[in-house]
Amino acid sequence: MEKLLSDINVPEDLRKLKVEQLERLSAELREFIIDKCSANPGHFGASLGTIELTIAIHYVFNTPYDKLIWDVGHQAYAHKILTGRKNAFDLNRKYNGLSGFPKMTESEYDAFGVGHASTSISAGLGMAVAARLNSEDRKVIAVIGDGSFSGGMAFEGLNNAGWQNADMLVILNDNNIAIDPNVGALKKYLTNITLSGKYNRLKKSIWNRLGESKFRLALKRLGNTVKSAVLSEGNLFESMGFRYFGPIDGHDINTLVKTLSRLKTIKGAKLLHVVTKKGKGYKPAEENQTEWHAPGTFDKNTGKKFGSPVVDHSKPAKYQDVFGETIVELAGMNPKILGITPAMATGCSLNIMTEHYPDRVFDVGIAEAHAVTFSAGLAAAGYMPFCNIYSSFMQRAFDSVIHDVALQNLNVVFCLDRGGIVGEDGPTHHGVFDLAYFRLIPNMTVSAPMNETELRNMMYTAQLPAAGPFSIRYPRGNGVVPNWKIPFEKIPVGKGRILKEGNDIAVLSIGHPGNFAAEAVERAEKDGISVMHCDMRFVKPIDEEILHFVGKTFKHAVTVEDGVITGGMGSAAADFFARHGYDCRVEMLGVPDRFIQQGTIRELQAKCGFDAEGIYNAVLKLAKHA
Amino acid sequence: MEKLLSDINVPEDLRKLKVEQLERLSAELREFIIDKCSANPGHFGASLGTIELTIAIHYVFNTPYDKLIWDVGHQAYAHKILTGRKNAFDLNRKYNGLSGFPKMTESEYDAFGVGHASTSISAGLGMAVAARLNSEDRKVIAVIGDGSFSGGMAFEGLNNAGWQNADMLVILNDNNIAIDPNVGALKKYLTNITLSGKYNRLKKSIWNRLGESKFRLALKRLGNTVKSAVLSEGNLFESMGFRYFGPIDGHDINTLVKTLSRLKTIKGAKLLHVVTKKGKGYKPAEENQTEWHAPGTFDKNTGKKFGSPVVDHSKPAKYQDVFGETIVELAGMNPKILGITPAMATGCSLNIMTEHYPDRVFDVGIAEAHAVTFSAGLAAAGYMPFCNIYSSFMQRAFDSVIHDVALQNLNVVFCLDRGGIVGEDGPTHHGVFDLAYFRLIPNMTVSAPMNETELRNMMYTAQLPAAGPFSIRYPRGNGVVPNWKIPFEKIPVGKGRILKEGNDIAVLSIGHPGNFAAEAVERAEKDGISVMHCDMRFVKPIDEEILHFVGKTFKHAVTVEDGVITGGMGSAAADFFARHGYDCRVEMLGVPDRFIQQGTIRELQAKCGFDAEGIYNAVLKLAKHA
Repeated sequence: MEKLLSDINVPEDLRKLKVEQLERLSAELREFIIDKCSANPGHFGASLGTIELTIAIHYVFNTPYDKLIWDVGHQAYAHKILTGRKNAFDLNRKYNGLSGFPKMTESEYDAFGVGHASTSISAGLGMAVAARLNSEDRKVIAVIGDGSFSGGMAFEGLNNAGWQNADMLVILNDNNIAIDPNVGALKKYLTNITLSGKYNRLKKSIWNRLGESKFRLALKRLGNTVKSAVLSEGNLFESMGFRYFGPIDGHDINTLVKTLSRLKTIKGAKLLHVVTKKGKGYKPAEENQTEWHAPGTFDKNTGKKFGSPVVDHSKPAKYQDVFGETIVELAGMNPKILGITPAMATGCSLNIMTEHYPDRVFDVGIAEAHAVTFSAGLAAAGYMPFCNIYSSFMQRAFDSVIHDVALQNLNVVFCLDRGGIVGEDGPTHHGVFDLAYFRLIPNMTVSAPMNETELRNMMYTAQLPAAGPFSIRYPRGNGVVPNWKIPFEKIPVGKGRILKEGNDIAVLSIGHPGNFAAEAVERAEKDGISVMHCDMRFVKPIDEEILHFVGKTFKHAVTVEDGVITGGMGSAAADFFARHGYDCRVEMLGVPDRFIQQGTIRELQAKCGFDAEGIYNAVLKLAKHA
Repeated sequence: MEKLLSDINVPEDLRKLKVEQLERLSAELREFIIDKCSANPGHFGASLGTIELTIAIHYVFNTPYDKLIWDVGHQAYAHKILTGRKNAFDLNRKYNGLSGFPKMTESEYDAFGVGHASTSISAGLGMAVAARLNSEDRKVIAVIGDGSFSGGMAFEGLNNAGWQNADMLVILNDNNIAIDPNVGALKKYLTNITLSGKYNRLKKSIWNRLGESKFRLALKRLGNTVKSAVLSEGNLFESMGFRYFGPIDGHDINTLVKTLSRLKTIKGAKLLHVVTKKGKGYKPAEENQTEWHAPGTFDKNTGKKFGSPVVDHSKPAKYQDVFGETIVELAGMNPKILGITPAMATGCSLNIMTEHYPDRVFDVGIAEAHAVTFSAGLAAAGYMPFCNIYSSFMQRAFDSVIHDVALQNLNVVFCLDRGGIVGEDGPTHHGVFDLAYFRLIPNMTVSAPMNETELRNMMYTAQLPAAGPFSIRYPRGNGVVPNWKIPFEKIPVGKGRILKEGNDIAVLSIGHPGNFAAEAVERAEKDGISVMHCDMRFVKPIDEEILHFVGKTFKHAVTVEDGVITGGMGSAAADFFARHGYDCRVEMLGVPDRFIQQGTIRELQAKCGFDAEGIYNAVLKLAKHA
């Protein structure tokens, strides 16, 4: 049997197929994705769920003239494959390869770059308004999952688009799950309308009987405020000024094509509710959707994952698991401790706490600002929330941290997982700004432990009375200490630790890269360079005693951090030296002032120049001046 | 007639009154607020609209044991007056006086500090959950305006609270206006249900006939998903898991007391829709709600405002008006220019552009993240949005700036009004972080003009082709140049300007405080100190030529900025010196690392030490070392 997919390079090729062929194309595309993702890890489940939808959209709409925006973008693999990137897909998420997310500079079919949730309606509205201003008949389609819909920005976008009655189509891709099972009133509401089908049937019957023009005429005749109110009360999305269609089966490609073709002719703000299944067509992924969100490599025939979920005790633990196990211990000691996550219970290992204290863990859905202010409310009432948010997502709650937590000096502990370069997820997900933007905030304690024991003790320290707002950031991946579970010890806040004395050059590191620094220092010593190495532990309050010592003693210092150099720890040290008039030249290593693409963590750290090799080279260079 | 208000110091006193007396108390309280605000300016209109509601809440609920949270807090004057702060109210918004907003450290009746919009539901949910964990029968009430409801956080809070069926009451204070008339689909929806009253009557009749317990029983009997879906479809808020009550007249104190008393007995998530009038009871304020949001001082008998809105041409213009008039000029030259504001059209003077180009100005409601990503969408489609957001509110869109604009290098111009110390609005509103947090973001140009002409030329420069993401921040209040409207001139990006040569000390300033620096420098010269003064204009890209020159030439530099010292312009200069090994001691003037309370701008700048006097003193001190 001839393969359809092999002849399709761009959507124009796709549009030459007959509708009857699309189901077969779906099957081929599904097989292609399963095949590729089994060998080269990626966001698997979401993309399997949108294969039919992707085909139908490109079949019906005139992309790239019509603008298609994928919210988050985990679900856009089929889109990438159908839009000129089939052959490049082997390099998905690799250095110099394809981005794991839609990206404007990668393809004209990627109308807007994504990665973080809930942005698509706002961006799409911008494009719809531009088309209106240009008097272009350009369609705009935003595809957004029910998980992303819990983010407030989605509502801000709806509220504004509905008000303007913008000519755009929002497709709600309702698979009832984000990474962990979805939560929130909206999820329940969507389930209800999907199960009842009542609303849909009512609308459909009016629709079918009257046809589009008559339907609109009838609506117009009703036309006074009272009656339109009665009509608009029927549905959440219609309350927001959108015409609601659906729910329809997102794996029935004929219905999808028919519905989209019809919607294409209707002007104004419309929402189509499509019900899909995450992992569709690959049984293990359908059955365990959280595990198969991004499963790593696997045997496509057996479904056996090669990156085994069984914990290998000979290897150091993941930092996230150190967090997850430690919060359970602390919660046992301190009944005021609660765990808060915006939809990342598994990702940050807070699910370990859920097993032990189900009533003390709160997954609030994708809603970072709410997560922080909810935590502030809990703290104001005497609780001690540990609010765990990935570093790059914490950017979305910056004001909440300032305005609701720090200004009121509330005891909220922020655990920032994925702090630093995160690897394959690329620039939208690197958590490289946090040390710098948290450092600006009065009252905050800003820390980054160098290893698992330090993380554990930092968490212990943060929950002691009157610690105030306290942030602890740690990276994606594994630590370095095999036996980290030793008795808790309080860390003196604002105090670094000198790991090695030395005379020629001072190396100041913060967080996990301190391990690279230790390696570099050892190497430099062998070359006869005497290096002092200090793990600063805190960016704020910074250890002034150490900085005075370094400023007085050394002519040269190297600072090392897994974050932006601008405004980070090295910058704090430089500030200090300049203010106190110390003549100490500082070589700052970290993430330079540009966005860093995807690749492995090691690869990217090396490119940035703060791996062991980079630190060694910096020390060597300064030693020549010394 | 005896005054009721004079005997009320705390809500407990209020609760001793008979319900029949509350209307008179409302009248007295209204008179008190009109009297006080006419002499001491404040947020007038919103507080007049919530007098009856405030009395009713404190009458019915057991504050401060029950937790009352006011969203934003503009409307909380009656609350302050009834909760022990009647006599202190003369010092409202003054240095060492009362905060203009609820503030936890000021009163136990202020359950949560506010200022920015849309936080109350999230914070209230935290308190409701804490009460549940403590098994306390503590009520939580969040009062939120319809304007604040357009902020996505309000939906994040609703979605989570409804899902948990948290025992809390959200009171929607629907006055159909924020500062400017409210916009958005939600506003329309609320107007519709208020006008129709249908929903309300239906519920009321069931309610009255069955009573609470039977009503719940009846609901329970319906009990399967399909039927609960049918019921929950009836109303936006019920879709979000809240029981909806209202709308009721927010100036009818008897109905308010009766309704609140009833709601107090009902467990779970409830929303009461209360319709109020901003400026209620003071005719000029009712008739012109935007002007009377914060009218300044006025003659309470005639309604004549003393801070006349007529532009005084002998005085320099307000920066915001320079923005407003300049964007009109630029829009005339460049058809791609659009104006975007999140609900601050009057506040930022974008309303001037609306008069000329109504189709090219977009007020998106209180929704900063959306405003930025909507702008990004417009820019992706080839437009040149000028997105004007107050500096302190821009914190809410930090991630949108990074993720949606800067990462994609889109040409969005950010105009940050109220950059720096804003005065009487205090710590929630000071716009002191922006230079530091924008400086972290790759691809961004970060500027702050020193005067009106510079602002004008910076705006001109920002809209030239391929400028990329470009931010321009300027302060609240007036400029310094009488004739600023001179022909446009391009400013070389990343270049400062040397205003004065000198030999002993270098003063580097950014933005409006450059004028204070000029004064200080002049004074120092008279003392025989030779000072070089440079207006840096840009924090990013920073002028490296000037910094090399300063580093090579001077042993001492003073940096001046109206923003946080940590990570700001001075810090950028210090970084540069440390990296290049220049031995130049830097005294950094700006906002120190703590939250700054309310007061006049001059007062607070002096306290921070970057007014002319402070700069002069810093120069003098360094000169002694020189």
